[in-house]
Amino acid sequence: MKKQRIILDQDDVLADTYLKIAQIVVRDFGTGLPLEAFYNKPFTDILPVTDRERITKLIHEPGFFADIPLKVDSQRVVKALSEKYDIFIGTAAMEFPNSFREKYDWLQTHFGFIHWRNIVFCGDKSIFKADYLIDDMPRNFIDFEGQPLLFDAPHNQSDTQYQRVNNWEEIAKILL
Amino acid sequence: MKKQRIILDQDDVLADTYLKIAQIVVRDFGTGLPLEAFYNKPFTDILPVTDRERITKLIHEPGFFADIPLKVDSQRVVKALSEKYDIFIGTAAMEFPNSFREKYDWLQTHFGFIHWRNIVFCGDKSIFKADYLIDDMPRNFIDFEGQPLLFDAPHNQSDTQYQRVNNWEEIAKILL
Repeated sequence: MKKQRIILDQDDVLADTYLKIAQIVVRDFGTGLPLEAFYNKPFTDILPVTDRERITKLIHEPGFFADIPLKVDSQRVVKALSEKYDIFIGTAAMEFPNSFREKYDWLQTHFGFIHWRNIVFCGDKSIFKADYLIDDMPRNFIDFEGQPLLFDAPHNQSDTQYQRVNNWEEIAKILL
Repeated sequence: MKKQRIILDQDDVLADTYLKIAQIVVRDFGTGLPLEAFYNKPFTDILPVTDRERITKLIHEPGFFADIPLKVDSQRVVKALSEKYDIFIGTAAMEFPNSFREKYDWLQTHFGFIHWRNIVFCGDKSIFKADYLIDDMPRNFIDFEGQPLLFDAPHNQSDTQYQRVNNWEEIAKILL
């Protein structure tokens, strides 16, 4: 029987991109805010527009995507999922042309067991056909015909439309 | 009404990648063969294994994808198609990690009217959902649920399974 297919987003699903940004803000932006201030709220709720522009600049800089920390349990659970499912990575890399090679190398380093044939750099994710899509952006589910799983993130707290997963352990319980 | 979606391959559909390789072989490989020898036959039928290995090396070199010539009429017809259809570019760039930026810049240069959201770098194209896929590789049609159009190329002459299009003018006649 053909395996069911799961598409995994990279940033804020496999990689803790939000955490890396928050750590840089706390360290370098002189806001006086502790890291905890960023745990449940998006940058848009906390920071003035000048700081948010500084973040936009930051994530477009060469090197930004090279050393993002892993989401807790992501390696272990994705490895287990890959035994049972056909796993694809689908990431909106087109917004960051400087990041292509960094994002690819990051995946090779941390998820080397996923073949390059199963990595997709895209923009609009409505082009995908799969059984599951795990993503932190509700907009990516609008035209998706499979089962969406919304990976909890500070910037998607207001969404109530899609099934939320809080961490990789929860994904393991649902899919394994 | 929602526009129908077309996915266009990049190499040997928008870009004349085969021609660039053939020109380099004629110029640098000392085979004594004229360019015409490559018009209707794949490299595998014409060249010994050492020359084919040299080609593999060549296409992995930085710079190779930066200046591929355009397929005749591709710009004009894709522009016209983009008025009527939702156009995506889907290219197997993952095989060539050195080529990401070159392939992206080439598309910006020659098809700048296609938004980055509609560009996809992938490996396995069975992940795509669309109404049409125009590609030179029959293997990419196996799991495709829309209408395949096989763009004629020396390396797909033996295929009789899929509807063949010989050039962009023929695509215009079918889709416009």
